[in-house]
Amino acid sequence: MAAEYEPTERTRVRRKPKRGSYDRELVHAILDEAMVCHIGFVDDGHPYVIPTIHARDGETIYLHGSPANRMLGTLADGTACCLTATLVDEIVLARSARNHSLNYRSVMVLGTAREVTDAAEKRRALRAVVEHMVPGRADEVRGPNEKDLETTKVLSMQIEEASAKVRTGQPADKPDDLELPYWAGVLPLALTSGDPLPSPDLTGDIPVPGHLHDWNRS
Amino acid sequence: MAAEYEPTERTRVRRKPKRGSYDRELVHAILDEAMVCHIGFVDDGHPYVIPTIHARDGETIYLHGSPANRMLGTLADGTACCLTATLVDEIVLARSARNHSLNYRSVMVLGTAREVTDAAEKRRALRAVVEHMVPGRADEVRGPNEKDLETTKVLSMQIEEASAKVRTGQPADKPDDLELPYWAGVLPLALTSGDPLPSPDLTGDIPVPGHLHDWNRS
Repeated sequence: MAAEYEPTERTRVRRKPKRGSYDRELVHAILDEAMVCHIGFVDDGHPYVIPTIHARDGETIYLHGSPANRMLGTLADGTACCLTATLVDEIVLARSARNHSLNYRSVMVLGTAREVTDAAEKRRALRAVVEHMVPGRADEVRGPNEKDLETTKVLSMQIEEASAKVRTGQPADKPDDLELPYWAGVLPLALTSGDPLPSPDLTGDIPVPGHLHDWNRS
Repeated sequence: MAAEYEPTERTRVRRKPKRGSYDRELVHAILDEAMVCHIGFVDDGHPYVIPTIHARDGETIYLHGSPANRMLGTLADGTACCLTATLVDEIVLARSARNHSLNYRSVMVLGTAREVTDAAEKRRALRAVVEHMVPGRADEVRGPNEKDLETTKVLSMQIEEASAKVRTGQPADKPDDLELPYWAGVLPLALTSGDPLPSPDLTGDIPVPGHLHDWNRS
């Protein structure tokens, strides 16, 4: 399998090509780290952008939800869509307002989705979603039963037309601004977890799974 | 001004109406807390979703970027767009895989944008963007000069057709699952900042602004 996705007219990063990447591993890593993605599609002539949980298995992205979910129904009909996942890494603080920026990593995947009807693949997809949220969690829950599968719609989307955009590094102030008496640098950001809060209806003496204390994304 | 936006056929939350809100203050608060938003628009018949920094001033959302930016050009032409901002608050861990979820707050604003050409409004918009990233920062940088204004495109979008969606609270396991020996609860997440990292070209003895140590979103 090629190390890079083939750029197309629609995915090639034009204005700042150095920020663009088609690297397969980078695209995968961004999709895996992002807790949610944003799905864009057109319905009745108007664009909509809806946040949703996704999960990746190889070159397949899975989405899921209620069979009554409007977005999933529209996508299952073969409507073109754009799946975008974004991670904000650092605030870039320059001497000038103009050169402030964000360091980020984002992925855009274009294509169409299809409904997954095979029970085994649905199970794999739903397992991947749970593992995407909390690695290790799928082995400490009741997996989907027949009714769960019937009442969950799963879609898949192949990663074929995709690109990443990444900004890293320090601010790029103009030479004239370098001597200004203002602090410049980056402020790192991370999505971090606090203490797990047990459900009030938790029965018995069930301990918090230890790995929940080590949940981290960054 | 009404406390709620008027729901429309396009913004009314249908499937889980209790999660929907049209409350003006809630919509504003989500937009203000979200570091970036995702903009959906249609170009040459295909939907695209692009992450970007936004800022709110009253009922106006400002976007900005290079005059060569493709998305800004398309939006300035009056193309319909959807602006969505999403905050992920907690991972919801249930006894069953099926009842896992995310607690989140999201906002969707539908409409069109227009280019801001008035210099005073452009300055206000760019100040709002810097303040959106780091409150207090706009007073400790060099503000935009004439050339900065000329080489920055600013768009505005009115918040008129908007809705929020919010999930809070503990997992909703089925009664039959409550006795299962699996931990259930929520894992709180927050976007937190680390230590500021000075730019290598920082001259003199300029201290880190104290408020950067207290940057928090959640």
